[in-house]
Amino acid sequence: MKNALRVRRSENFADWYQEVIREADMAENSGVRGCMVIKPWGWAIWEGFQAKLDRLIKETGHDNCYFPIFIPVELFEKEASHVEGFAKEMAVVTHHRLVNKNGKLVPDGELESPLVVRPTSETIIGEAMARWIKSYRDLPLKINQWANVVRWEMRTRIFLRTSEFLWQEGHTAHATREEAIEETRQMLDVYRQVVEGSMRIPVIAGEKSPGERFPGADETHTIEAMMQDGRALQAGTSHFLGQNFAKAANIQYQDRDGGLSYAYTTSWGASTRLIGALIMTHSDDDGLRLPPKMAPAHVVIVPILRDEAGRDEVILAAEALAKRLRAQRYDDEPVRVKVDLRDDSGANKRWAWIKKGVPLVVEIGPRDVAAGTVAFVRRDAIGTKRSASLDEFVAKIGDELNELDQKLHDDALAYRKANMVEGLANYADLVEHFEKKGGTGFVVGKYSGDPMIDAKLGEIGLTIRCLPHEQSGSEGQCLVTGAPATVDAIYAKAY
Amino acid sequence: MKNALRVRRSENFADWYQEVIREADMAENSGVRGCMVIKPWGWAIWEGFQAKLDRLIKETGHDNCYFPIFIPVELFEKEASHVEGFAKEMAVVTHHRLVNKNGKLVPDGELESPLVVRPTSETIIGEAMARWIKSYRDLPLKINQWANVVRWEMRTRIFLRTSEFLWQEGHTAHATREEAIEETRQMLDVYRQVVEGSMRIPVIAGEKSPGERFPGADETHTIEAMMQDGRALQAGTSHFLGQNFAKAANIQYQDRDGGLSYAYTTSWGASTRLIGALIMTHSDDDGLRLPPKMAPAHVVIVPILRDEAGRDEVILAAEALAKRLRAQRYDDEPVRVKVDLRDDSGANKRWAWIKKGVPLVVEIGPRDVAAGTVAFVRRDAIGTKRSASLDEFVAKIGDELNELDQKLHDDALAYRKANMVEGLANYADLVEHFEKKGGTGFVVGKYSGDPMIDAKLGEIGLTIRCLPHEQSGSEGQCLVTGAPATVDAIYAKAY
Repeated sequence: MKNALRVRRSENFADWYQEVIREADMAENSGVRGCMVIKPWGWAIWEGFQAKLDRLIKETGHDNCYFPIFIPVELFEKEASHVEGFAKEMAVVTHHRLVNKNGKLVPDGELESPLVVRPTSETIIGEAMARWIKSYRDLPLKINQWANVVRWEMRTRIFLRTSEFLWQEGHTAHATREEAIEETRQMLDVYRQVVEGSMRIPVIAGEKSPGERFPGADETHTIEAMMQDGRALQAGTSHFLGQNFAKAANIQYQDRDGGLSYAYTTSWGASTRLIGALIMTHSDDDGLRLPPKMAPAHVVIVPILRDEAGRDEVILAAEALAKRLRAQRYDDEPVRVKVDLRDDSGANKRWAWIKKGVPLVVEIGPRDVAAGTVAFVRRDAIGTKRSASLDEFVAKIGDELNELDQKLHDDALAYRKANMVEGLANYADLVEHFEKKGGTGFVVGKYSGDPMIDAKLGEIGLTIRCLPHEQSGSEGQCLVTGAPATVDAIYAKAY
Repeated sequence: MKNALRVRRSENFADWYQEVIREADMAENSGVRGCMVIKPWGWAIWEGFQAKLDRLIKETGHDNCYFPIFIPVELFEKEASHVEGFAKEMAVVTHHRLVNKNGKLVPDGELESPLVVRPTSETIIGEAMARWIKSYRDLPLKINQWANVVRWEMRTRIFLRTSEFLWQEGHTAHATREEAIEETRQMLDVYRQVVEGSMRIPVIAGEKSPGERFPGADETHTIEAMMQDGRALQAGTSHFLGQNFAKAANIQYQDRDGGLSYAYTTSWGASTRLIGALIMTHSDDDGLRLPPKMAPAHVVIVPILRDEAGRDEVILAAEALAKRLRAQRYDDEPVRVKVDLRDDSGANKRWAWIKKGVPLVVEIGPRDVAAGTVAFVRRDAIGTKRSASLDEFVAKIGDELNELDQKLHDDALAYRKANMVEGLANYADLVEHFEKKGGTGFVVGKYSGDPMIDAKLGEIGLTIRCLPHEQSGSEGQCLVTGAPATVDAIYAKAY
């Protein structure tokens, strides 16, 4: 059977990725440099993600709030290490007016001091925390915001790296180091629950090496996923900031003994790039494949209306089936069903929904109505059109969705296992492995912690993705330096 | 009884408003000019509003999506009338980098062409619509986005007028004028449903006079509310844009006959200023009063823990009551209950929740536990502490919330009726009325449509709020020009 996409995943992964997005009508590049338009199908997936993550953020005791989009440049000046690290490429607002000069609009009304469009909000939230926190009674302070942020990226790729992106950023302050570290780890686990449990993207949780840490963090924890080209994608990070930001922002509190102490802070974020991860983990040469928990529609019903005879009966039967399905529940919510009544052929409509990744596409024609049956395809086996009685189909909807859910996870996990290598002896092996395999896959090897390692890996386009929380504890030699080492690390190329 | 706030509504309305917000801990001004921090209590109210409005926007067939925050200045140049009207004061991004010069961070990397932080998105969405709409089959196109927007306001007031604010903006394109006008009116009614039905703010729906229209609109419709100082607040607007924006953005489609036609477009928005309207409509000298449908917590239970004896029993009883209440439903959702276990006195906690506007504050002490009773106050009658058996209280929770809901609406409606005047004879009367009453209230009077009216009213700080959709049809004389007129208008000072 001919594939629905013009580009095969195996031929040109980057083009295939763009094609999946275009054919699923999820998003597009805008006329504004590096900024994307997220279209309804892409947005509905993001809304589903937001709802799941937001619930867990609230269940773990965080309150949502909202901070200004603009950050005074002076706040960044306080944060020298922060700025050195990554924050130099930022959108800078310098004027507050446009005036018409000979038909051209030009900036006017220069600001006394420039404002930065937030690349992240540690600085401005730190300033608020310093005002809000007076005593140990005010701790822990656990807040989160859903917001747009801007980082002026030179090379952009839709969802994965865009100048403007959407995310949530959590910021907390604690009285003790232990409690802050526990928070950091807890929120990483919250990300894991959503990314692995709902998005069905297998991840490896671990700590970043010092060279890969968030600037100013004492520890950065991450969940790392493998895309279908073998490259790693960081799917969520959680930072233990120690007292570094508290000292810069003067977040001090009166402790139980009456003394003044600096708080320990954390921050953690997950962004629209996860939609890119979802696409690159599950899609195939026929387009997007959506894990059922992330699908804006679980079932799309396509009435087959070849001629006027029987038209009303078919539409009525489709609507009746939709109603019965919506009375069923999946993932603690009613089953989501669309009936596609657009003016187009059944085949075109079926392909459109397959490319959009809908778990089950159902067809009902006049003969189905007469026989009380439906024909359907499941997104992991679109070559197999199956038939079932209406009752059977309704009764088994949960099973079908569960099986697909499991299948997508199993496929992704099998791919990762097949592309994960252990037992390389030394740096020459590491270099050869990535040259031979065209730069893909994860290598598990030892890491000595030598500060030069990150730079040396950078020369050949590799990074340490993480030092997994699950460690073997075995002894060996660092893959880069050859020094004796016990820590396991994941070496990979990354998005 | 002493009031909870230091400022009385009747003494200084503007200071009282700030005090309500501060004491309810809803929001605060940030260090960034004109931008606010929305704190958890304020944000939870906004989230409740979003959920209600978003559901209606989807039920009326709109899809959410997301457009870039930056708009190229060239798009505004196309929109001359738009820019003349209101869009000159905007945040302009001119650089994409900050560099460190002698310890100061200064803008670097000048953009070839400046970008504007969106003040509204007609231009950039119009550009997308021009690409997306090719044929009549692509119509209607009905989209919405929840976003932050920036208008560089000279005088700001928290929630009511801030440089950055949050809103939704709906944008639709239609094949016919009639359909677009119907959409415009439908979405105004959606706003009315939420603002009047859930926020319990009585509104008058009507059309704006030409001088008050959105620049570039053929018709602007509005719902207007009266605040407790008699001033009007525009609580949602819906614009019929005719073919004006379609022509500027070249939104053309192939019609059924194969010809090319311009689409008719609409846009409509409601913003965080509605939170300001909620505050100014319902609050009193004891702080915020929340209509139950907008309350993040319907009930707060304060365990009275004077000494250690009986402490565990009281907390258990409080949690048990919370559980029973959460099993009840109100407004199609479980009743929202908090148990306040913070380390503070019962009286302090009760006042804190009263100032936050919680509908019912319940106290349970050791004697209540022994007797199986609770003591409670309802926010509209905090001077009356009532007692009920646990069973009674649980059984009547819906009734109590309904009564409060009705009471707040009735109070607001009664205030509006008491401050609405008809039958003034002429302009001298109008001027005298507003001078005498200190510039408050609504005057219903005739309006001839003369273009000079808006400017003349502006001289005395008045505006025409709307020409109500419900018209008396009577004949009379224009309150400003004295000319014969049949159209009723609302004259008022406004936020």
